[in-house]
Amino acid sequence: MNRFFRFFMMVVLMGGLLSCSQESNANKIKYKLSLSEQEVKDINRLLGKNDLITKSFNSLKEATDFALSIDIDVPPPGESGSYEHERHKQNYLDMKSAGTMFRLTKDEKYAQFIKDMLDQYAEMYPELGPHPLAHNQKPGRLFHQMLNETVWLLHTAQAYDAVYTWLTPEDRQNYEKNIFNIMVQWFTVDHPQEFDRIHNHGMWAAASVGMIGYVVENQEWVDMALYGTQKDGNGGFLAQISQLFSPDGYYMEGAYYARYALQPFLFFAEAIEKNQPELKIYEFKDQLIRKAFYSALQMTYPNGTFIPINDASRSMDINAPGVVYGTSLMYDRYGPDDNLLGIADIQNKVYLNGSGAKLAKDYQQKEVKRPTWESIEFRDGQDGKQGGFGLLRTGEGDDQTVLAMKYGVHGLDHGHFDKLHFMFWDQKREVIPDYGYCRWINIEPKFGGRYLPENATWAKQTIAHNTVVVDQVSQNRGIRKEADDVHGKRFFFHAENPDIQVMSARADDHYPGVTMQRTLFLVRDDALDYPFVVDIYRLKSESEHTYDYPIHYRGQIMATSFEYKSNNNLLKPLGNAFGYQHIWNEAEAEPETTGWVTWLDRHRFYTWIFSGAPNMKFYFARTAANDPNFNLMVEPLFISRQTGKNHVFASVIEPHGYFNEASEESKNAYSTIRAVKVIGHNDIGTVVHILGDNNLEWFVTVYNGDNPDPTIEHSVRFRGETFSWTGNYSLKKIK
Amino acid sequence: MNRFFRFFMMVVLMGGLLSCSQESNANKIKYKLSLSEQEVKDINRLLGKNDLITKSFNSLKEATDFALSIDIDVPPPGESGSYEHERHKQNYLDMKSAGTMFRLTKDEKYAQFIKDMLDQYAEMYPELGPHPLAHNQKPGRLFHQMLNETVWLLHTAQAYDAVYTWLTPEDRQNYEKNIFNIMVQWFTVDHPQEFDRIHNHGMWAAASVGMIGYVVENQEWVDMALYGTQKDGNGGFLAQISQLFSPDGYYMEGAYYARYALQPFLFFAEAIEKNQPELKIYEFKDQLIRKAFYSALQMTYPNGTFIPINDASRSMDINAPGVVYGTSLMYDRYGPDDNLLGIADIQNKVYLNGSGAKLAKDYQQKEVKRPTWESIEFRDGQDGKQGGFGLLRTGEGDDQTVLAMKYGVHGLDHGHFDKLHFMFWDQKREVIPDYGYCRWINIEPKFGGRYLPENATWAKQTIAHNTVVVDQVSQNRGIRKEADDVHGKRFFFHAENPDIQVMSARADDHYPGVTMQRTLFLVRDDALDYPFVVDIYRLKSESEHTYDYPIHYRGQIMATSFEYKSNNNLLKPLGNAFGYQHIWNEAEAEPETTGWVTWLDRHRFYTWIFSGAPNMKFYFARTAANDPNFNLMVEPLFISRQTGKNHVFASVIEPHGYFNEASEESKNAYSTIRAVKVIGHNDIGTVVHILGDNNLEWFVTVYNGDNPDPTIEHSVRFRGETFSWTGNYSLKKIK
Repeated sequence: MNRFFRFFMMVVLMGGLLSCSQESNANKIKYKLSLSEQEVKDINRLLGKNDLITKSFNSLKEATDFALSIDIDVPPPGESGSYEHERHKQNYLDMKSAGTMFRLTKDEKYAQFIKDMLDQYAEMYPELGPHPLAHNQKPGRLFHQMLNETVWLLHTAQAYDAVYTWLTPEDRQNYEKNIFNIMVQWFTVDHPQEFDRIHNHGMWAAASVGMIGYVVENQEWVDMALYGTQKDGNGGFLAQISQLFSPDGYYMEGAYYARYALQPFLFFAEAIEKNQPELKIYEFKDQLIRKAFYSALQMTYPNGTFIPINDASRSMDINAPGVVYGTSLMYDRYGPDDNLLGIADIQNKVYLNGSGAKLAKDYQQKEVKRPTWESIEFRDGQDGKQGGFGLLRTGEGDDQTVLAMKYGVHGLDHGHFDKLHFMFWDQKREVIPDYGYCRWINIEPKFGGRYLPENATWAKQTIAHNTVVVDQVSQNRGIRKEADDVHGKRFFFHAENPDIQVMSARADDHYPGVTMQRTLFLVRDDALDYPFVVDIYRLKSESEHTYDYPIHYRGQIMATSFEYKSNNNLLKPLGNAFGYQHIWNEAEAEPETTGWVTWLDRHRFYTWIFSGAPNMKFYFARTAANDPNFNLMVEPLFISRQTGKNHVFASVIEPHGYFNEASEESKNAYSTIRAVKVIGHNDIGTVVHILGDNNLEWFVTVYNGDNPDPTIEHSVRFRGETFSWTGNYSLKKIK
Repeated sequence: MNRFFRFFMMVVLMGGLLSCSQESNANKIKYKLSLSEQEVKDINRLLGKNDLITKSFNSLKEATDFALSIDIDVPPPGESGSYEHERHKQNYLDMKSAGTMFRLTKDEKYAQFIKDMLDQYAEMYPELGPHPLAHNQKPGRLFHQMLNETVWLLHTAQAYDAVYTWLTPEDRQNYEKNIFNIMVQWFTVDHPQEFDRIHNHGMWAAASVGMIGYVVENQEWVDMALYGTQKDGNGGFLAQISQLFSPDGYYMEGAYYARYALQPFLFFAEAIEKNQPELKIYEFKDQLIRKAFYSALQMTYPNGTFIPINDASRSMDINAPGVVYGTSLMYDRYGPDDNLLGIADIQNKVYLNGSGAKLAKDYQQKEVKRPTWESIEFRDGQDGKQGGFGLLRTGEGDDQTVLAMKYGVHGLDHGHFDKLHFMFWDQKREVIPDYGYCRWINIEPKFGGRYLPENATWAKQTIAHNTVVVDQVSQNRGIRKEADDVHGKRFFFHAENPDIQVMSARADDHYPGVTMQRTLFLVRDDALDYPFVVDIYRLKSESEHTYDYPIHYRGQIMATSFEYKSNNNLLKPLGNAFGYQHIWNEAEAEPETTGWVTWLDRHRFYTWIFSGAPNMKFYFARTAANDPNFNLMVEPLFISRQTGKNHVFASVIEPHGYFNEASEESKNAYSTIRAVKVIGHNDIGTVVHILGDNNLEWFVTVYNGDNPDPTIEHSVRFRGETFSWTGNYSLKKIK
C-alpha cells in the first residue's frame, strides 16, 4: 500500500466517522503503550511555554531527526561492543524515539522510518540462529546475550504500538510473523529458564513479552509475562518484583542495577495499569513500585550519583533513562513531591508523556530546591528479614553529608563480600569511597568493556571495602554460594535526634567463629566545623585471629601523630590472595596507642583518629600490585591490624579546615579531636572515650546484647568505674 | 583630636573654601595613589546599574564591613603560617579595602578603622627587632621575611593615602615617625642588598618605598625606589623591570611569579604615572609594561590557569589580585581589547577605579567571548637573546588546544632544569603536565607550607619534566649556578599556517658534549578527530650516552602495541639520584620497533606513537619512591630509553575518541596513527615517516643546520631516496 492509498483510506475512515467529534474519533484508537490523544494535546500545549517540556521535546526531536537523516542500517549480528552491536542498540532507541515523535507531531516521516527499519529486521531475523559469541551467557539472535534482545523488544514494542494503526495489516502480519513471534518463542519456549529466572534479565524478558503481548493483543504472552512460562507464578513479572525487591523496595543487586531494572519494571507496570487496571499494579504489595523507585532515588549521593556498592560504576546517576521516566511517572501516579521536582532539576528533563507534562507544569510554578533526603534504613531480602542498608544524612540539598552502611544480602553474581562496609560523602564528594567494579565499560581494548579479572580478585574482595577482614581472608572465603546463604543483621537505627544519628548492624555468619557488630554515628557538634563520624566495630571470637580494619581514602597524607617506617626503596604486596596481592605496602608503623592521620582531599582536611592497642600494626598502602594489564585504579588506603580474640576498633573521622591552592589559603590543618580510647567492652556494652583540644570530651556507649530496645537501662563496669545509659547507645559530651 | 573636633575643623575648612565649587574643592586634594573625585563619581554612577562594578563593590564592601565588625588585632610577630603572620597579612588587606571604601562612600567609619589600626602598629613597631625566625631569608620586623613587610607597606601606603587628609597632622607625624620611617630605613639602609637585588623581592621593596614616598612627599625615597639605594640605576624599579622581563615582557621566573610581581609592578607604575608623568613610564622600553602584562596573560591555559613551569602551583590563575588590577589598568592605559573583556569575564570582577569602571561599561555593552590567544614566541633574557618560550595554539576560547615549550633561561632560584620541556593542553585540561613545585602552600603541617625537600630532589630535576635526560643526570648536573650561566636557543617558530604550526629550539650547553634540538608540531588534519602533536627530538654527541625520553601523563593505561613485563610483586626505584630515586619501575618492555601506548584521560583517549630502535627500553613508571613523608603526588609516566651517540626520538601524540562512564559510551578507543619511523637524520635534516589506518601517510622533515631560513631549499638522501623541502620544515601528507 503506497502513501496515497494510505491517505485515501484515512479520508474514507474520517468520512465514515463524521458524526463523531475529532476527539472521540481519536479516542477510538486505544494505544496500548503510547501517548493518548489527551497526552499529545497536553504536551503540545506546553511546547514553547514550558522550559522542561520544550527542552525535552527539542532534544528528542534533534536526536530523532538525526537518526532519520542517515541511512538505515540493520547489519548482521556482531560481537559485544562492535559496530553491529552498537547499531542494533541505537536502532531500537531510534525507533522508540520516532514513535514518540510520530505521536506528538503526526508527521508520517517518523512512522515511515519505523516501518522501513522493521521491514529490514523482518527480512533478516528469521534467518538468524543463536548468536555464536555468547560466551557464558544465554544467547540472543541479534545480540550475543538474550538480555540485549529483550531490551530491543521492550523498546521496539513501544515504537510498534505508536504506528500500529498507521501500518497496513500486511505490514503487521509481516512483523509479527517474522520478528515478534520468533522472538517471543526464543524467550519463552527456547530459553524458559532465562525467562523465568529471578534476576534483572528475567524482568526484562517478562516485561518485553508482556508489552508486545498487549500491543498485538496476545493475552497468552501477557499471562506468561505476568506469571511465568508455566503461568504458575514461579516466574514472571509479579514474582520478579516480589523477590528482587525487599518490602521496602530495596533492590538486592544495588542501585546501579536497580536503575537498569527500573526500565522494564516501570514501563511494564504502566502498561499493565493501562491495559489491565483491574490488577491494581500500583497498589501491589503495599505500593512496592513506589517504594522501589524511591529506594533507588535514596540510594544516591546528593549530586544524584548512585552509591556504587557491588559491581557498579562510580558515576552512574539519576540521568539514566529509567529514572527520568520514573520521576515523571511517580509524580503522576503517586502524587506530587518536592523531592521529585528536585530530582527533575538535576535531570533537567522530563519524560514526554502526560506524567512528564504534569511534573513540568508544577516545576515551572514552584521554587524548586535540590532534593533533601531523610536518614533511612532499608530492609533487605524478599521477606525484609535479611539485614539491610542504612543511610544517615545531615545538612540540606546538595551539601548533605551522607554515611552509608551495607548489611544485607550478598546480591547475586554482582555482589561483593562487603558486609558492614561503610562509605562517607562529604564536601560534595565521596571521601571514604567504595571501589565499585573493575571494568572499563564499553571500552573495547579493555577486554571488550566487560568485567576484568581484577573485578573478582580485587573489587569483590573484602579488603577492597571499608570493613574488617579476618585473617586476611575475605568474608565467606570469597565464595558466592556461601555468601548467598547468609546475610547481615539489622540491629538498631536511630535518626530521631538530628545531632546524634546512629546505626548498628551485625554480621555473624561471614567468618566461622567470629561475630561482628559495627555501630556508626553521624554527629553534629558546635565545637567542630563539620559533622563527624564515630565508628565502633566490635569483633568477638573464642580463638585468636588477625583483624584488619581498612580505610580507603582520597588525596594526600598531611600529617600523622606517630612515627612510621617508609618502604622507600622496595615495595612488596601485603599478601598473596583475597585482594591483598593487589596492595603495595608503602609504609608501616606500630602506634601502640591512640593516634591519628590527616589527609587533604580537595578543599578539606580529614583526620582519622583511632584507638590503639599493644601490638597493633598500621599500614600505609596503595593499589595496584599484581595488575599486569593496568586494569586497576591506583588508590590509597590505611590498614590498622590487630591480633586477638575479642577486639574493638573505635575511631573518629573528622572533616576540618579549608585549603585552596589557587588562592593559597589554608585553615585548621589539624583536627580538633585528638584521641579515641576504648574504656572497655563486654556482652552488655562498649564504652569509648573521645578527647579533643580545648578539653573537649565525650563518652560513647553502645549496647552489645541481643535485644535492642530504646527504653531499657544498661550498666557496665570497667576500670573501676560504672557507666550507665538508657537504650541502645549514648553519646555524652562532658565538656 | 576627637571626632567632633575633626568634624568642626572640616566645617571650618569647608567654610574657608565656600567660594570654590565642591568639585574644585575636592580637586584641591590631590590623591597620590587613591581614587580621584572623578573616579569616585564614575563608580558611584555605575553602582546598581552595571553588573561587574556592582558585584565588585558589594564583595569589597562585604569583606571590609566584616573586617570592621570584629576586634582589631595587631599581635606580636609570629612564625610563618601562624595566626599572627596571617593576621598581619589580613590587616594590610583590610586597611587597603577600607581606604577604597572610604573614598567611595565617604563613610568615616572606614577611615577610623585605618586610624585605629595604624595607632596600634605605631605603638608596637618601634619596639620590634629583626624577626627571630627568618631561617635563610632576610628578616622583616613584623614578618619572618622582609618580602612580607614590603607587601605590608605597599598596601598600607595606599590605605594611608586614602585617609591622609582626613588624619590630623599629629596622627601623620606619629605614623611616619613610628612606622614608615623605621620601615623604609629597614629596607633601604639596613638591608640595601635585598632592596637592590634584581628579583621580585627587590621589586616589592622598591615599589613599596616609592609609593609611601609619594604619599609623604619624600622624593628621596621615591628616587631610591626608582634608581636604587645608590640612585645609580643599578637597583630600583627601572633596573628591576628592565632585567626581570625580557624585551617581549616574558618574566624569567615564569608566570606564577609574574602574577605576584605584577602587583608592585603595576601599582608603582600607576603611581609614577600619576605623580611623575614626565617619566612616561607606560612608554618605558617600548611599552614594556603592556608587554609584561600581556605576556603573563598569554602564559595561561584557556581556563585562565598559569602554565606551571618552574616552582609554581598548578592552580594559580588570573583571578590573582595583580591580574585583576592589571586587566582594568591595561584596558584603560593601552586601549580597549576584546581579550581583556574575556579575561574579565573569567575573573567576574573589575578593580574599583576609573579603569575598572571603563572596562565594566564596555563589558556591559558588548557581547563578550572567552579570550582566544594567538600562537606566540617570547624571547627570554633581558636582552631577548637567551632563548625563549613558545606557545602554539589552535581552536577558540576555552576549547583551545595548547602546546608549550620552554627553552629560555634557568629562572633564578625558582628555576627548573627543564630546557626543551613541553606541556600539552587538550580537552580543557593539562594532559601532558608539568609537575609544578613540591610544596603544600600555607599548609602548616607540611613544613610550614614552605618548599619541601622533594622540590629539589624531584620537582626541579630534569626527569620530572617532558624532556630528554642524558645518562640519568639532570641538565647542568642540577646545579643552579651552572644553569644560570647558560640558556636554551630559539631556532625557528612558524605559526602562519593554522593547520601546521611548528616550533624548534636547541639546548647545547646543558650536557657536556651533547647538543639537542627539539621540534614540535601542532597539526590539524581532517582525517583525525582532534589536533595532534608531532615531536622530533634530536641528540648529537661524539661519545655514547643513555638518552631517556619521558612522557608524564594522567589517567589509565588502556592498551599497548607491544608486550611488557610487569613488576607484579616487587617495585624498585629506577635510580638513586637526579629524581630517579623517586620513580617506581612498574613494568618494562623492549619494543625494538615503532609502537604505541594508549591511555584514557577523563573523556578522551590519548595515544603516544613512538619510533623504535634496537636495544630501546621502555618503562612504565610512577612516582613516588623515597618519599618518606608522602610529600609527592603519585603520578604516572613513560620513559623510552635509548643508548647511542646520535639519536632521534620521533613521536606523535594523538587525542582520539570519547568515553563517558556515566552514560556508558565509548568511541574510537584506538588511534588512527599507528607508526612513526625515523627515515634518517644528519646535520642538514631529519626525515620522519608517519603511518596510520586507511593508508594515511605523512613525511615530516626538519632542518638541522645552523641558519634557519624559510626560503632556502634543502635536500637529504637516506636509504637511497632523496628528500627535498624548502625552509625549516615540511609536513607532507601523502594520502
